Amino acid sequence: MNRKIEVGILGATGTVGQEFIAQLSDHPWFTVTWVGASERSAGKTYREATPWRLPVPRPDRVADMVVERVTPGQAPKLVFSGLDASVAGEVETAFAETGHVVVSNARNHRMDPLVPLVIPEVNADHLQLLAAQGTSKGWSGGIVTNPNCSTIMLAMALAPLRPFGLRQVIVSTLQAVSGGGYPGVASLDIVGNVVPIVRGEEEKMETETKKILGQATPAGAEPHPLVVSASTTRVPVINGHTELASVALETDPGQEALVRAMQEFSGRPQEADLPSAPPRPIVYMHEDDRPQPRLDADRDGGMAVCVGRLRPCPVLGYKFVTMGHNTVRGAAGAAVLNAELLKVDGALA
Amino acid sequence: MNRKIEVGILGATGTVGQEFIAQLSDHPWFTVTWVGASERSAGKTYREATPWRLPVPRPDRVADMVVERVTPGQAPKLVFSGLDASVAGEVETAFAETGHVVVSNARNHRMDPLVPLVIPEVNADHLQLLAAQGTSKGWSGGIVTNPNCSTIMLAMALAPLRPFGLRQVIVSTLQAVSGGGYPGVASLDIVGNVVPIVRGEEEKMETETKKILGQATPAGAEPHPLVVSASTTRVPVINGHTELASVALETDPGQEALVRAMQEFSGRPQEADLPSAPPRPIVYMHEDDRPQPRLDADRDGGMAVCVGRLRPCPVLGYKFVTMGHNTVRGAAGAAVLNAELLKVDGALA
Amino acid sequence: MNRKIEVGILGATGTVGQEFIAQLSDHPWFTVTWVGASERSAGKTYREATPWRLPVPRPDRVADMVVERVTPGQAPKLVFSGLDASVAGEVETAFAETGHVVVSNARNHRMDPLVPLVIPEVNADHLQLLAAQGTSKGWSGGIVTNPNCSTIMLAMALAPLRPFGLRQVIVSTLQAVSGGGYPGVASLDIVGNVVPIVRGEEEKMETETKKILGQATPAGAEPHPLVVSASTTRVPVINGHTELASVALETDPGQEALVRAMQEFSGRPQEADLPSAPPRPIVYMHEDDRPQPRLDADRDGGMAVCVGRLRPCPVLGYKFVTMGHNTVRGAAGAAVLNAELLKVDGALA
Amino acid sequence: MNRKIEVGILGATGTVGQEFIAQLSDHPWFTVTWVGASERSAGKTYREATPWRLPVPRPDRVADMVVERVTPGQAPKLVFSGLDASVAGEVETAFAETGHVVVSNARNHRMDPLVPLVIPEVNADHLQLLAAQGTSKGWSGGIVTNPNCSTIMLAMALAPLRPFGLRQVIVSTLQAVSGGGYPGVASLDIVGNVVPIVRGEEEKMETETKKILGQATPAGAEPHPLVVSASTTRVPVINGHTELASVALETDPGQEALVRAMQEFSGRPQEADLPSAPPRPIVYMHEDDRPQPRLDADRDGGMAVCVGRLRPCPVLGYKFVTMGHNTVRGAAGAAVLNAELLKVDGALA
Repeated sequence: MNRKIEVGILGATGTVGQEFIAQLSDHPWFTVTWVGASERSAGKTYREATPWRLPVPRPDRVADMVVERVTPGQAPKLVFSGLDASVAGEVETAFAETGHVVVSNARNHRMDPLVPLVIPEVNADHLQLLAAQGTSKGWSGGIVTNPNCSTIMLAMALAPLRPFGLRQVIVSTLQAVSGGGYPGVASLDIVGNVVPIVRGEEEKMETETKKILGQATPAGAEPHPLVVSASTTRVPVINGHTELASVALETDPGQEALVRAMQEFSGRPQEADLPSAPPRPIVYMHEDDRPQPRLDADRDGGMAVCVGRLRPCPVLGYKFVTMGHNTVRGAAGAAVLNAELLKVDGALA
Repeated sequence: MNRKIEVGILGATGTVGQEFIAQLSDHPWFTVTWVGASERSAGKTYREATPWRLPVPRPDRVADMVVERVTPGQAPKLVFSGLDASVAGEVETAFAETGHVVVSNARNHRMDPLVPLVIPEVNADHLQLLAAQGTSKGWSGGIVTNPNCSTIMLAMALAPLRPFGLRQVIVSTLQAVSGGGYPGVASLDIVGNVVPIVRGEEEKMETETKKILGQATPAGAEPHPLVVSASTTRVPVINGHTELASVALETDPGQEALVRAMQEFSGRPQEADLPSAPPRPIVYMHEDDRPQPRLDADRDGGMAVCVGRLRPCPVLGYKFVTMGHNTVRGAAGAAVLNAELLKVDGALA
Repeated sequence: MNRKIEVGILGATGTVGQEFIAQLSDHPWFTVTWVGASERSAGKTYREATPWRLPVPRPDRVADMVVERVTPGQAPKLVFSGLDASVAGEVETAFAETGHVVVSNARNHRMDPLVPLVIPEVNADHLQLLAAQGTSKGWSGGIVTNPNCSTIMLAMALAPLRPFGLRQVIVSTLQAVSGGGYPGVASLDIVGNVVPIVRGEEEKMETETKKILGQATPAGAEPHPLVVSASTTRVPVINGHTELASVALETDPGQEALVRAMQEFSGRPQEADLPSAPPRPIVYMHEDDRPQPRLDADRDGGMAVCVGRLRPCPVLGYKFVTMGHNTVRGAAGAAVLNAELLKVDGALA
Repeated sequence: MNRKIEVGILGATGTVGQEFIAQLSDHPWFTVTWVGASERSAGKTYREATPWRLPVPRPDRVADMVVERVTPGQAPKLVFSGLDASVAGEVETAFAETGHVVVSNARNHRMDPLVPLVIPEVNADHLQLLAAQGTSKGWSGGIVTNPNCSTIMLAMALAPLRPFGLRQVIVSTLQAVSGGGYPGVASLDIVGNVVPIVRGEEEKMETETKKILGQATPAGAEPHPLVVSASTTRVPVINGHTELASVALETDPGQEALVRAMQEFSGRPQEADLPSAPPRPIVYMHEDDRPQPRLDADRDGGMAVCVGRLRPCPVLGYKFVTMGHNTVRGAAGAAVLNAELLKVDGALA
């Protein structure tokens, strides 16, 4: 590759926007040349506008950029959106209408049947929905989304089990506070405590999982018939969502075959050797006390989903633990991988 | 009551033993007159022998007692056992054989069909098994146990649902570190982290729940046919186990009726106005972010079980959150309530 | 006492206001009959207006009260102020001008030479400044303040050392998150972390300590010549500020005499047996790993200051650890004790 | 460099030993070819013998090695010691006597006047003491030590201030739990809590700092006349010791000059471009809420010491915050840097 592709960040000053800056700081294919944020930040340098909260230093090159308003026009064709849901819907549509390819982490367009909701290892073929965006919506650009941070860890672990017939899943989450943004969760609510709800998250897990595991058709995405029941909690962990899942399958290939299916699972990112792809999408851990957020969330740059404790569930059939880095694999890294997929599969031409 | 009943504590220096001392320090019916522990502590004063780890001061009266070896003989008839499982089996049997009534928190005898495993609000009638201990085992005393700390929060929440036919439960736990004793869980394992297993706990929840909800028969306890699947985790919380449960019932009385059944649930401790009984065994909380360990574990002196978020589960039928104080309702307080039940129901005569 | 004194709460819905409601719920002398808050809450019931965040249930009696605007008039003569510093200055003055006695936890008037800044055990005599408020300011009521939460733990520990000539103190704090109010400190900043500043707190400790330990004169409070240097941090603790102090004295009575001075320290609240007074203002702990927030912050209902590890400091002379409950002894409980002092010493007549 | 230098690890299975394995896994100069541990582990593979607790995967190459007993003989000339203090003294001496160069993190030999206690940026010249070990002790090898994890963060920050005459320091620490090894600090002691002592640590800081900043003479190390007073605490942080220091200097060059001295500070590792050397030993941070363990402990691979908030101290002159990664810069990384220094300065010949 001779020249890097210029990209913009919508919502660059927020928590997810900062993650985009960090993820893209040394990216071999993409280079951030445009940062957009709200009225309040526009006109300031990125340094002034952003209370940087990541444990890696803010890249100097970006720090000196002037923040623009999040309106189409000057921005590069490819933009990443870390916008807040309160504005993402309209802003992303405006960019798509004017020829931009929006790779979004926001929830607003995820459940639109014509918008691909993609985990590249699981449903790379859903990108075909982009074509319908042009014909049905008249957009000259398009929108591709990644799932909610909790959905990704579950959907990735379920994907290798699809051949055995996914029927039902009951999942409980123990979610990290970084998922709530900044300032987000109040320390008084979470130091030495558990909050037994993450508002809005259960609905997302119950619907997004079905869309991702479903089929892309010319008329739009058709959800998988799987039934999902989610219970979500917040725990005093910085990064790494842990999820306890029980699953009912149509056929029982035996415990070892299921573990093997997870270990051998691979997809388009691994095949195409995408820069952000982990060697294996799922790292299966045999120690009975793993995965753990502190020890395993950063595995493969935070892009691996770690699974362990696959064993019989007396009620549904099997149960296991799945865990991954919620702001990398579950947010900014997920979007970057989507953009890499777009590039190799021609959608950025 | 003119005179208090003298009681002894087996394993008085350990974590549960300390809780017994604290729970009994101002008890209206019982007074600690004997403290027993291992060889290593015997002969020392309780003050010397015990690294006191509770946020309430160590009662001076007990602090000055000399610790005895945990052998029957000098101990009062009624003894509470906070012994470690590595020794509890034999020691408790020795006490029961020699006429002591052992109210135990240890796991060793819990699943013996002739040993009552009791939550007084749920299965007070199981005390009838004590009679069979004399005839079958030849004990002149007896053993009564309380469940594992995780089992209690689940079994209490399920009890009011029994009339609707309990069929299946899938439960995920987020357990406090005090459940692991002292020193117990290493801080490196749990600060800002989740450990996705509490070893041995899943089996206990899956079997003890069935025994408690089952029937006492002349031949021993007969487990309830309910199928339980448990996934357990440890979280950085000091006190208060949070559990997320999905339940399948034979009949569906509707969400409101289930909440009402929980709110109106009551049992022998409330009827007999036992000193340690909470006004209601279950405090149902309507706020969607409750119960929480920090805010609710101490409710009613730590003896209430707090339930919230009862709502439909797309897979099994209903789901809810249950939470309670693991070292009070889940351990020492549970045993004290058992002893109070024994007293009013004649078994201490 | 035949009838309780009616009291009002300014800023009743906030964090400190909630603490006032909790502290006063069973008070033998005072009864809350009026709750005031901002425009936004006025007209609602206290239940509706307040996201209750305390581990004790909200008293039903207060929950049903209608919240008033914080303007003088209908409020009882005695009011407690938990107002935010952004409004406390003007509102408290308005109440004092119109005959109310304002017992305030806000910082705004603390350093006014005519406003008593009182720890009842340390400088009860500073209440004499109230008289000058009438003559100099023309207030028909008055304002009494308590110190910042960090100042109290230090000033209380220093008070018994006054006879030996306080010259210099260097203090480092490890402050609990409840001191930051709600939502206050973001969880991302503090879970598994330390923030090496609590903004504004170092200045308060360095000036308030001198005023409290100083003299009340007809012309106003005259600060103690002691020099104080404070470094403040926030740590992931819910309640209980820990402080490490080194102190230079004019005379050296020896380590034992200093410990004895702390243990024997007592003041007007103990003498008058005020309802909120701890038996001893300072609990000196001999174990080398105490005091600790988790084990000791609730000592004597949170009103004791716990001190330990008094030992030589190679640089200044002596060093020790002081710790207390920041929202009880350090805020609402401090104000309630001030009000009790006002009552017994005639200032409420 | 054509071939890597073979090194051994004494105490390879413990916490510090694991850090050595991790630090050396891709080292350009050194390669681990020998792992030694106690009787209990000897004969097992490193994989079997070690409960790996680091967030990076255990290197496969080392995992397959067989653990040897920690006796000299087969081990390479250069060995790193992560031995527990209970055995380090004798074992390290045995290795030094038999020709090994021991680069130790253990405390046992640190205060021996003939053993260099080295922070390469601060007192690289102390390596000259090695010569005296041969003549005075008759060792054919030698021992070099690095300071206690708390000492390093302080001594590094003080080193640039030496030109201004160091007279007195009062320091308070907030230490991470990883400093206590595994299992180390009990979670019940530290979740949501502070422990106001780290036993033994205050003495180490008060003596080691003086030795490091002192002079190496033919007769041994001569401590700096600086007086140090340390107060230590443990806080619920995984990695990163935060320290609050006040310092008295002989001359006052002004605040800016002190900051500049820290920023410009550099030493032998930077000059020789040692592989583990950070670009600058001290990263001075201008934001008033930095450094923080979560955000800054990993700076420059955990080898930078981060300093901030340098400002006047009303008692001693100046105060500041210093923070660094306790198991990297404060332990294994410190020893590796010492070994790199030994290599370039000829002592490994």
